[in-house]
Parts: sequence; structure tokens; C-alpha cells
Amino acid sequence: MFKYEVIKEEKNTGARLGKITTDHGEIETPIFMPVGTQATVKSMDQDDLKKMNAQIILGNTYHLYLRPGMEIMKKAGGLHKFMNWDRPILTDSGGFQVFSLGDLRKISEEGVEFQSHLDGSRHFMTPEKSIEIQNIIGSDIMMCFDECAPADADYEYTRKSMEMTSRWAARCKDAHARPDEQALFGIVQGGMFEDLRARSAHDLVAMDFPGYSSGGLSVGESKDTMFHLLDTTVPLLPKDKSRYLMGVGSVDALIEGVIRGVDMFDCVLQTRIARNGTAMTSQGKVVVRNAGYADDFSPLDPECDCPVCQNYSRAYIRHLIKCNEILGARLLTYHNLYFTLKLMEKVREAIRSDTLLDLKKDVFSKYGLE
Amino acid sequence: MFKYEVIKEEKNTGARLGKITTDHGEIETPIFMPVGTQATVKSMDQDDLKKMNAQIILGNTYHLYLRPGMEIMKKAGGLHKFMNWDRPILTDSGGFQVFSLGDLRKISEEGVEFQSHLDGSRHFMTPEKSIEIQNIIGSDIMMCFDECAPADADYEYTRKSMEMTSRWAARCKDAHARPDEQALFGIVQGGMFEDLRARSAHDLVAMDFPGYSSGGLSVGESKDTMFHLLDTTVPLLPKDKSRYLMGVGSVDALIEGVIRGVDMFDCVLQTRIARNGTAMTSQGKVVVRNAGYADDFSPLDPECDCPVCQNYSRAYIRHLIKCNEILGARLLTYHNLYFTLKLMEKVREAIRSDTLLDLKKDVFSKYGLE
Repeated sequence: MFKYEVIKEEKNTGARLGKITTDHGEIETPIFMPVGTQATVKSMDQDDLKKMNAQIILGNTYHLYLRPGMEIMKKAGGLHKFMNWDRPILTDSGGFQVFSLGDLRKISEEGVEFQSHLDGSRHFMTPEKSIEIQNIIGSDIMMCFDECAPADADYEYTRKSMEMTSRWAARCKDAHARPDEQALFGIVQGGMFEDLRARSAHDLVAMDFPGYSSGGLSVGESKDTMFHLLDTTVPLLPKDKSRYLMGVGSVDALIEGVIRGVDMFDCVLQTRIARNGTAMTSQGKVVVRNAGYADDFSPLDPECDCPVCQNYSRAYIRHLIKCNEILGARLLTYHNLYFTLKLMEKVREAIRSDTLLDLKKDVFSKYGLE
Repeated sequence: MFKYEVIKEEKNTGARLGKITTDHGEIETPIFMPVGTQATVKSMDQDDLKKMNAQIILGNTYHLYLRPGMEIMKKAGGLHKFMNWDRPILTDSGGFQVFSLGDLRKISEEGVEFQSHLDGSRHFMTPEKSIEIQNIIGSDIMMCFDECAPADADYEYTRKSMEMTSRWAARCKDAHARPDEQALFGIVQGGMFEDLRARSAHDLVAMDFPGYSSGGLSVGESKDTMFHLLDTTVPLLPKDKSRYLMGVGSVDALIEGVIRGVDMFDCVLQTRIARNGTAMTSQGKVVVRNAGYADDFSPLDPECDCPVCQNYSRAYIRHLIKCNEILGARLLTYHNLYFTLKLMEKVREAIRSDTLLDLKKDVFSKYGLE
């Protein structure tokens, strides 16, 4: 099952406090979803994710299709059982990775032929195939297979690509074998062209999906461009359906996205910069890998109550990162995810109390944003 | 402070149940000590180690001297505070690593000149320097600086090396600045030569250390040779002092060592094979990386009650290891350490109930040992 309800709209911005109900439990929105590409949120175990109150995580269809593969996924009884995660899971369609990771792609109306980035093996991904895979994975929220046109594609290419994505969305809906258990979202495309994104939204809304994603954003354009496209596209989506901004997770974009009516976000930023030695803190990013922190025995973020900040110092974590110790990546990952989930909790609280703009001002000024 | 008491000797073997008391708490012996080379037991956090009931962990003097270095260690107030571990810590002397990792070594009576394996920087390690470092680290149990002669060294080389190690031990004792807080152990050397090890033991016992280590074993010789050398050397050590067999941690060697009167063990085996995809189980080693486990949804060890075996399958862990995911190394490391600590708990119980030989028979037959 899948149900989305708006609980409250914030007075000043219209930002939505909402609740999603799935077979694996409820999700309070707006929400940030940690990314568990290969059936693991890198360096976390499932108990960690529960402790930091991750309500839902992502899996990547492209990666899971290649490894462990669908035979094993079937035998395991789906991804929840395979990885022992009993809360909701969202999967992407594989589209983004086919285009960003796959080699030697050939795109046709039927689908995309590509070579695995792992072993060069040839595969043919179609809307039907993507849905079949996601049906086997058993994610609570699935995505339609879309073409992610290159960020610098011209108007004509982007228009044709968007139109094909709409036709693919219809095929995905038809192919969906478990609509009562898994919700399938449409993905708005159209590049940086306002009118194309509007047409894409229009096409998809006509197909009546239980939720709508904004894809193809945060791919190199300025944040102002992204926010402007959200300004013009999000209002075209039905108010009673959930809205997901794909691949976006910086502090400012999370808050600006919520202000523009987005309910769901995911991003690898938190976990990726962690492994490179950077912490997200209430005072902005701290590159704890830097020499200046070698004898800084204070916590990553003095305002944070996560177990990492309660137990370990910047000096210790810097030492671990410099030594390439797994624990360094792990501690920073835990903290960055905790920090982001906590931020979203504050965002939900601010919607409740109609103080979202105050929160934005406060967070931005401390984080060092304009 | 440091105190060792024998609580009970096993009726059939003389294996000792004991208790060590330190400023950071008590240790029940026989005990296995997880190795935390660079101020971290690889992939574990300190909370994990407490949950699996690690009573004491190791730090490596050579590594900590190079990184983070003693300036930071001093500012941190020692290793316990630096890494946030409030239970006992044992440090080696750096001797073994100077010889196994350092480049371009020059050995003299005064000490060893070597180049760092990290950056080629030149260092001069002496008995006094090793003790000074360990005094700064603040470990509860320290080791004398020793020369680890090559395993294939001849009698004359080994004799001279052992004699110098005895002289170095005396210098270490003299240099020790915090004898009331940190216990300094002597290290028995002498290669594979029974008479040299006996003389080494004799030299060190005359200096009255609070504990004695057996060094230079498990360096390539057969297990029978090692057990034979323990048979002839351990009885030369005072009964009221603790005994530590360095670098030994395989299932059979742990049990055979205890039977021969050893109280303490450490080894990187558990954590190293974990990162390579191998589990230690009650039925022997399981190379979970192998293709045969791809669809094996049973736990690593059906008899194990650790959280890894309660929550995750061989198929999932194999997938993680094949994908080089940090969580794979982490889950296997946790399990292998838990398995070994649990084994030592059973060993202590068997000493209490005079059933150590029954336990050995049972463990060996299930593990696939002779």
C-alpha cells in the first residue's frame, strides 16, 4: 500500500508537513533519504540507520541488477530481507546510472543497450525491464525508467528525450505487476527548459501516478536555475501527491526545496564527503582531514548530540582519516547522516510552528550561506 | 597499578584461570586481546568492542609514534583519552615493527636506526625511547624493546641478539618513568633454540618483571615447534606472574597455549581474514567470499549469537565483500572477534570446571582440526 497525506502547510511558504504510509511503515515528510546504492549505506549497518532514525533508504536498481543480480534477489525474497531492513525502501529506475556509469550506450525507443561498468557485459534496459527488476527488489517506492539527457543537451534533443520519457512512463505503468504493494512515481524531465519541464509534468500528471519526482536537476546548473525550475514546475504537480527532488541534499537546497513544496530528498553528498574527511556541522563544513585539526580535541560539531560527537574528537577522527582507517569513514558518515536527518526534523518542526523562514535564516547564517 | 592473581589451576592440564587488575579495570585470563594498531581495531568502534566484551585491546608503539606522533598523544593525555577507550590497553615495544616494516635498519648496541615505511623519514629507536613513547601513550601494560631476530637466523646470531635483548630489557626497566601506573613485561627471545629461550627466560626472571611475554614465535615455524618451545620455556617463568604469547591467535594455538600455561594472546588474524572475506565459525573457517555462498541465506555461524549472525546472511555478507563495501569487512570483523572472545570465555569456564581437554576435543573436532 501507499498513501500520502498533507498534515499541514506552513503559513508563510506553503511548505508541506506530510505523512507517507507504506507496507513497511510510515514516513514523516519532508524527509532526507540516505543512499544505500549496493544494498548498504556505505559504512553503516542497518542498526546504525535505525538509531539515527532513518525512516527510509534508497537502493540503486542499476547496481543491484548487476550485483547481487536478480536471481539472488528473488531467492532472498527482495531487498528488505536480503539486507535485513524492515523500514521503507525507495529504488531509482536505473536510468541515471545507465547514462552515467554504463559504457557504450545505444538509446532507442525500445530502451537502452549498455555495457556494465564492472565487467563490460552487455545488457538491454527497457522500461519493462526496469519495472520487473524493481518488482523483484520489492521497494516500497519505485521510479519510472527515464532518459537523463546530458546537462548540456540542446532544446531539440531535450524535447525528444522528454517526450520519450513520457512514453516510457506509460509503459512502466503498464508493466507494473505489484501496484497494490509498490508505489510507482513518474519522473519530470525536460532539462533546464521551463516549458519542457512543464509539458513533462503535464504528461505525467495525466497518467495519475501516486507521486512525482523531479529528475535531471543538480547536474551542474546553478542553484538559482534549479530553484527557479522548481518554482515553475512544482506548482504543476497535484497537491495531494508526494514530491521527490532526486539527488539533492546540500543544506541550502534541502531547505529551499522544502520551501518550494518538495517532500523527499536523497543525496550521496553526506556519505561521499564523509569518506573524504569532511563533516557537515551547524557552523558549516569542517574539513577535518586538514592539518589544523590534528590537535583539536573538540567534537566535530559542538551543537550535535550524536554518539560520534559525544565520544570522539576531531583530532582522533583526523588521525583515522589520515591513516585510511575504516572507522574514520564510519564516524564521519554517521555524523553527516545524523546531522542531515536532524536538520529535516527541525524543518518539520518549523513547518508545524510556521517558523520555516526563521529556521532558514538561522541555519544559513551559522552555516555560512548567504 | 598492576596485579596478577591465579584464581584456579585446571586439574588435568595446569591451565590457569587468573585475574589482572589495572587502573583501567580488571581482566579475566586467559584472554584474547584484539589488535588496535593505529588507535583503532580496524573497522570497529569502541562501543562495538565493549558490546562484544573485549576486556583489553592492543596499540602498536611503532605506528602510534609515527602517527599521530607523540606531540599529539601528549596533548590528548594518552591513548585512552585519544581514542576514548577506558578499559585496559597493552602496547608492544615497536621492536617487531621496526624489524618487519621499517626500511634500511641499522642495529647497534645503542638501538636501531630505521626509515619510516610511510615517508622514509629517519628515526632512531632505543630501549629508552620505546619506554618514553609507551609512558606517553599511557598503556596499562608495556613491553620491553627487543630485537626480533629473523626466523631463519643461525644459532650465533640468535644468541647475540637474545643477549642484547636482555641488556635492552635492563635499560627499559631503568628508563621506566611510571612503574606504579604501567606494568612493564620482559620478552623472552631466543628464536627456535630451546637453550637460548631458557637463558632468555632466566635473564629476565632475574630482573623481576610483573609479567613475561614469549616473542619471536608464530613467525613461520611449525605449530609443533612452537608448542614444544612453550612446553620447555613457560615452566621457567614464575607462577605468580602473567604470561603473554605474542602474535598468536588461531583456534588451536589459543587452546594449546592455555594448556601450556599462557594467560594472554593477541593476533591480527581475526581482523585480517575478516577483511579478506573469511569467517571463523564453530565448524571451521568459512570463506564467505566464495561463489558457493552467493545464495546461502544462513548465518555465518549457526551456533553464534552475535548480532551479525542474528541479523545478516552469508549471501548478504558475500555480496558486500564482493562489492568492496566497508560493511562487509565490519560485519566479518565483529563476528570473528566475538567468536574468539567467546571461545576464550568457554576456555575460562572449562578451567573452572576442569574440563579443558573435553573442550579442546569438542572444539577441534568441530573446527576440523586433528
